[in-house]
Amino acid sequence: MRKTVAVVGATGAVGIEMVKMLERRKFPVKTLVLLASERSRGKKIKFRGKPVAVETLSEEEIPAVDIALFSAGAERSRKYAPLFVAKGAVVIDNSSAFRMDAEVPLVVPEVNPHAIARNKGIIANPNCSTIQMVQVLKPLHDAARIKRIVVSTYQSVSGAGLEAVEELITQTKAVLAKRPVKHKVFPHQIAFNVLPQIDVFEANGYTKEEMKMVNETHKIMEDYSIAVTATAVRVPVLRGHSESVNVEFENKITADEARAILRNAAGVVVVDDPSKSKYPLAIDAADDERTFVGRIREDSTVASGLNMWIVSDNLLKGAALNAVQIAERLL
Amino acid sequence: MRKTVAVVGATGAVGIEMVKMLERRKFPVKTLVLLASERSRGKKIKFRGKPVAVETLSEEEIPAVDIALFSAGAERSRKYAPLFVAKGAVVIDNSSAFRMDAEVPLVVPEVNPHAIARNKGIIANPNCSTIQMVQVLKPLHDAARIKRIVVSTYQSVSGAGLEAVEELITQTKAVLAKRPVKHKVFPHQIAFNVLPQIDVFEANGYTKEEMKMVNETHKIMEDYSIAVTATAVRVPVLRGHSESVNVEFENKITADEARAILRNAAGVVVVDDPSKSKYPLAIDAADDERTFVGRIREDSTVASGLNMWIVSDNLLKGAALNAVQIAERLL
Repeated sequence: MRKTVAVVGATGAVGIEMVKMLERRKFPVKTLVLLASERSRGKKIKFRGKPVAVETLSEEEIPAVDIALFSAGAERSRKYAPLFVAKGAVVIDNSSAFRMDAEVPLVVPEVNPHAIARNKGIIANPNCSTIQMVQVLKPLHDAARIKRIVVSTYQSVSGAGLEAVEELITQTKAVLAKRPVKHKVFPHQIAFNVLPQIDVFEANGYTKEEMKMVNETHKIMEDYSIAVTATAVRVPVLRGHSESVNVEFENKITADEARAILRNAAGVVVVDDPSKSKYPLAIDAADDERTFVGRIREDSTVASGLNMWIVSDNLLKGAALNAVQIAERLL
Repeated sequence: MRKTVAVVGATGAVGIEMVKMLERRKFPVKTLVLLASERSRGKKIKFRGKPVAVETLSEEEIPAVDIALFSAGAERSRKYAPLFVAKGAVVIDNSSAFRMDAEVPLVVPEVNPHAIARNKGIIANPNCSTIQMVQVLKPLHDAARIKRIVVSTYQSVSGAGLEAVEELITQTKAVLAKRPVKHKVFPHQIAFNVLPQIDVFEANGYTKEEMKMVNETHKIMEDYSIAVTATAVRVPVLRGHSESVNVEFENKITADEARAILRNAAGVVVVDDPSKSKYPLAIDAADDERTFVGRIREDSTVASGLNMWIVSDNLLKGAALNAVQIAERLL
């Protein structure tokens, strides 16, 4: 049962990885339709060794496809996703457009695969920083029930797109050459700096990115009793998000028990040997489909608590891979 | 009452700043004695416009000085500080050698200046990441009583010395040029990466740096009931430590109340206007004597909680400035 698949936003940081994931994971693609904005007209992207021309996304010519993977921003998703659904597609949308819509499942296949069946044409792919966190925390929640999460992130620039990657590189060269630094994508210099702002601010003083980690965790874990507070920070890393996660549990769980549980968790790799300086690193996670967890240690400031360090490729498990995994479940 | 002052470790990242601070703050220096290891023989450092020769530290020739500022590593402090005290000096030691010694005051002048009087010849300067945190948290503790702190740090490479700064720059150039990356100071590549390890690991899975934040906070705040759990992370920033700090209070305190208190806190600057993307940044804090706090917002997952973002120059308030401020109090 091979499928016609569209990638909308095919020339973006995530779109490129979506095409790679379809190929690498041998997704049964009959025809691949690549769509992007007018700017990308004429571009070609290789799929299974052959160049596929990128077409221009337009309301007038919505293709009839089985599955459409969207990563072209919330505005385009809001406009185009319903049009693709009307033409018979299931849309898996990587933007924030539909994530909190009660009618739309928000899915991490290792956590809430059952939600996929409830879709009415659109399935939302969660925020990158949320995916890797819930993937690790769900099995621990099942074992010892999470009461509260305090998370601080160390997010790479690729989460802000290809222009952001270019901006970090250009700024880094400028700093090294003692030239003035310009910024456009980021609100301040990101080279040799860290920015405690990702996305825009809400009235409560939190950024949208931080509130995504709160609200999406509730929806994906299907447990609104879990208290989550987040600080989302951009760091001068090209690819791979790292997270310092402090978790308070209802029931007792030791670091050893957590490691044992996580060694059996789907898509998760425990890298945790401090005596050999082994722990997850962004540079190791880049271009890897797995989510890494380490520095698991007991937090004795609460009755049952753990600190841990979670790292994954924000473009893969945090975006393109998770979307393709949802598509695989649809087959 | 001008003083004879020695700087031990004068050619290191912190030692250089100690000399600058003595000059910039117009410390009443009669004679400045600069000491370092054999490696630095023949070097000269400018003080008040004149070059001062760096002498070699040796057991045989301990100079008689009024005040000795040490920043030459814990081993040298253990060996030489008592010898300087025997010659009549008060030693202000930036290493970890004496910090947890019950006989040695551990001082942040804005927090526990009274402890200075208890010294028996040695006063310890706290760890950089602890100083900036307690400087901001003490007035909030006085106002609403802190129950628990969950902190994740974003620490610059200069905290690991001048060689570490060179390593980040060399590695960054290598990555940009797609050349292989070598590491020596850090356990892994730090360029375009973040390392969840600072200092060595202890048996409980925490690093020494993390436990310093726990133990030193207790000693400086003189309150062992404050629960502290820390994750210390190195980031590819040249200068300036940032910290994501989650605080749970005994009594109610709002974000507005906290901002009002911190606006009156000595050495602290509130930079907190999200609507204009204004918050503390490492690149702004570099070479600034002040500690910056922003992103102050209520954490509704506890009865009374705040998240905040604290940034300071690890070489100044985190080391050299704090030591010179202690010396000023000794006058």
